[in-house]
Amino acid sequence: MSAAGQPVAIICGNGRFPKTVAEAAQLAGRPVFLVGLKGAAEEGISAFPHIWVRIGELGKVFRSLKDRNIIDVAFIGGLVRPELSDLRPDFGALARLPDIARLLLGGDDHALSGLVKLFEAEGHRIIGVQELAPALLVPMGQITKTAASAEALADLDVGMRCLRALSPFDAGQGLVVAKRRIVAIEAAEGTDLMLRRIADLKQNGRLRAKGASGVLVKMPKAGQDLRVDLPAIGLKTVAACAEAQLAGLFVAAGEVLMLDRAALAAKADAAGLFVHGFEGRA
Amino acid sequence: MSAAGQPVAIICGNGRFPKTVAEAAQLAGRPVFLVGLKGAAEEGISAFPHIWVRIGELGKVFRSLKDRNIIDVAFIGGLVRPELSDLRPDFGALARLPDIARLLLGGDDHALSGLVKLFEAEGHRIIGVQELAPALLVPMGQITKTAASAEALADLDVGMRCLRALSPFDAGQGLVVAKRRIVAIEAAEGTDLMLRRIADLKQNGRLRAKGASGVLVKMPKAGQDLRVDLPAIGLKTVAACAEAQLAGLFVAAGEVLMLDRAALAAKADAAGLFVHGFEGRA
Repeated sequence: MSAAGQPVAIICGNGRFPKTVAEAAQLAGRPVFLVGLKGAAEEGISAFPHIWVRIGELGKVFRSLKDRNIIDVAFIGGLVRPELSDLRPDFGALARLPDIARLLLGGDDHALSGLVKLFEAEGHRIIGVQELAPALLVPMGQITKTAASAEALADLDVGMRCLRALSPFDAGQGLVVAKRRIVAIEAAEGTDLMLRRIADLKQNGRLRAKGASGVLVKMPKAGQDLRVDLPAIGLKTVAACAEAQLAGLFVAAGEVLMLDRAALAAKADAAGLFVHGFEGRA
Repeated sequence: MSAAGQPVAIICGNGRFPKTVAEAAQLAGRPVFLVGLKGAAEEGISAFPHIWVRIGELGKVFRSLKDRNIIDVAFIGGLVRPELSDLRPDFGALARLPDIARLLLGGDDHALSGLVKLFEAEGHRIIGVQELAPALLVPMGQITKTAASAEALADLDVGMRCLRALSPFDAGQGLVVAKRRIVAIEAAEGTDLMLRRIADLKQNGRLRAKGASGVLVKMPKAGQDLRVDLPAIGLKTVAACAEAQLAGLFVAAGEVLMLDRAALAAKADAAGLFVHGFEGRA
């Protein structure tokens, strides 16, 4: 079923992604309505039909979507995990408080899948970037002129198997492998800080390396709901990989956001890094 | 078979452990001979019968042990992974170069088990702290006056399962779990830097927490040869856990070194932290 012409609400977290996705959806012929989360979303979303809400104002969100006959909802952009006390729930949120409390325990997957369930219970359909703007996802295969070496591919194999083993634990969307040894695993700190750590360890000699070595492997967790929780790479990721003196980036094709593909590839090539989309799902 | 009276060679890496283990072995009636690795071992080992060697001088080590009729060998203290070019092998090392080259690829376990095989091929028996100085290992159960809460025990359960899943990948002797969510996983950076990361994430608000929350779970990898590669905790670990505002430390009993038990427990109690030895092996 084609959704062209159907309006879509975009719940906007931080970063440029919400705006970019809104533009892509409009280009594809879908009217958009942006819901900016105060303290997270960028001012730029005001260029579209929009409202601003606190995270706690779930009732206001549901009413706004109902008034506009919007069924499809997309969650775009990141959010710092909120504390219960920060939520100041409105009446609509209070009515759903037991569900909300439950979804704030456990890993990220639980929180997000809980949010999905809340919206689905109101009759909404949750859609992701895959449907709204598939061109923003990492494609399969080599993206840069620089190619992955056989050694890098061997490191990818180790990294993929380790990330799959970690999947049930709702932690780790990325790691760094060098000479088949796993030297960093990402958890709450995020990819950029993990890469910063590798740069530091190489600089102070705790991790010995001559020249560029090691690869970033980035893919979603097995249970991750890609409609609401899509990993992303950007120019910052490439810069961090260059500082960490890696050989390149392996990214799960179709499962990771990538803005500015041409600029990203050019920057990676300039730093001697490859970027390569691989088949992540086992 | 009692080994009392049998001499033992202690190959000394960095830190205080080599000297402490040497003292404990002497107290147990075993003559000791210390082999100080230049650039790693502390000067203090000179208080015992000893020689100093470069890492590459394997031939010199083997000759020294043969001259003294020493069969038992213990590797104590840490080493930064050497680069091949740093080794400057002596003749005895050159003769074994293919084996040595092989053991420098792959994870820590491979390097260390390779070293064990080299010594075993020369007729040596590799022994660990468990045999030389078992009193230095973490005991089972609560070590502090402060006790682990039910929530902390639930976090331990998640952490143990995750560490076991990571074991085949020769990475991760520790992690931090908070409210059943894994927030940090240790790889090449070591435990102290991982804990520093949690402190930073809490400080800058990327990881929200009110008061002390989360636990360190530390245990060896499943395939880890505890004769040559024993994790350790010390006063620095306790200080780092306090800075990270954790609730406490779970440490695999009988599988982790702990110097200064009384001082460590006192320091932990003063910071409101529990230290608890758990049954690590599944």
